[in-house]
Amino acid sequence: MLRLGYQFQQQELLKQALTHRSVSQRHNYERLEFLGDSLLGMIIAEYLYLRFPLEKEGRLTRMRATLVRQESLAKIAKDLKLSHSLILSVGELKSGGHNRESILSDVVEAIIGAIFLDCQQLEILKSIVLKWYQPYLEEIEPGDQLKDPKSRLQEYLQAKKLPLPIYDVVQIQGDAPNQHFTIHCQVEGLSIVKGEGASRRFAEQAAAAEILKLLEHVE
Amino acid sequence: MLRLGYQFQQQELLKQALTHRSVSQRHNYERLEFLGDSLLGMIIAEYLYLRFPLEKEGRLTRMRATLVRQESLAKIAKDLKLSHSLILSVGELKSGGHNRESILSDVVEAIIGAIFLDCQQLEILKSIVLKWYQPYLEEIEPGDQLKDPKSRLQEYLQAKKLPLPIYDVVQIQGDAPNQHFTIHCQVEGLSIVKGEGASRRFAEQAAAAEILKLLEHVE
Repeated sequence: MLRLGYQFQQQELLKQALTHRSVSQRHNYERLEFLGDSLLGMIIAEYLYLRFPLEKEGRLTRMRATLVRQESLAKIAKDLKLSHSLILSVGELKSGGHNRESILSDVVEAIIGAIFLDCQQLEILKSIVLKWYQPYLEEIEPGDQLKDPKSRLQEYLQAKKLPLPIYDVVQIQGDAPNQHFTIHCQVEGLSIVKGEGASRRFAEQAAAAEILKLLEHVE
Repeated sequence: MLRLGYQFQQQELLKQALTHRSVSQRHNYERLEFLGDSLLGMIIAEYLYLRFPLEKEGRLTRMRATLVRQESLAKIAKDLKLSHSLILSVGELKSGGHNRESILSDVVEAIIGAIFLDCQQLEILKSIVLKWYQPYLEEIEPGDQLKDPKSRLQEYLQAKKLPLPIYDVVQIQGDAPNQHFTIHCQVEGLSIVKGEGASRRFAEQAAAAEILKLLEHVE
């Protein structure tokens, strides 16, 4: 049993929001997800704006990214008991689609879009979404951020509409599995920063973390 | 004279939306821009959703990206005659800040946030924003997209919450300025695609275009 806290007038909207493309090319959740994603972003943005009147835009952006990312939406899907209401093809079901984070998070957004179309009132939608989010909103702090420095750097630059960083491997020492990577990371307006690590990924994360530190000082 | 089509009750909100950080660390447009960005995204998403009832999410996402990117917002800033109302430090002004696309586009978003806080009614805000956008909305077609394949690929993957592509230079032939680059581009779930060109950038664009073709077939 779904725990949305909302009774649909138009049941077909709810059905569409729960339907995966594997069942219907036309009447699936994807368009509703497009709409719901933007509504969710707006609702969370307004909430954070009002709740943290002294926080700068950069920290608001990071908190929002934390709240609307796939992992957080999948938690909400679990709270709402979405999994067993999904409408999937047998193939998707057998391959575990009803527990896949990407599907669950998309459907949460699609339901948000569907509620808005059903009730046509932002205030009603807001109160429902904020109720779903309540446990996570209680926890959120301005210092919170995505754990992974590369993702955080990317979010940050996108929010500022700046080009994404360029990572280049400049040195690989030793032989696998004992290699040591040195990479350069370049961000517009900053000098090139070096990162080192036992894999290309670790080295890139180290460089991204360095750049984030620089950016926090600039801010 | 600003041509917003809206009369502020709280003039200080408009003032804040026009104020660059070089003038005030605290009362500048950045927080309002955070709020306005999400409101704009939502208004454009809803408009496109309703106007193009048969278009798939991927194409709606691309149209939205076209409409809300910096270049489009800077055009609207020009229509609104924003440039001469900006509140910038003398230094920013001397360096041409009042005509800088990044500042103009941020301020358009900040004004959207400010109007919402001032009137508290999404319907009023919507009608104002859609009026600003009218000439651009009349032009938009589902086939429209960002011209640059790398940007389009990035938008597409972000909308799907997939990891960004990885580009690797695998071969450089010849000497500058007559070099020929071969790169590999990797996207989760797809085989590696090759791109070639007279510069790293051209080769990457070619590969991104190839991948977009593959993705359109999948869609």
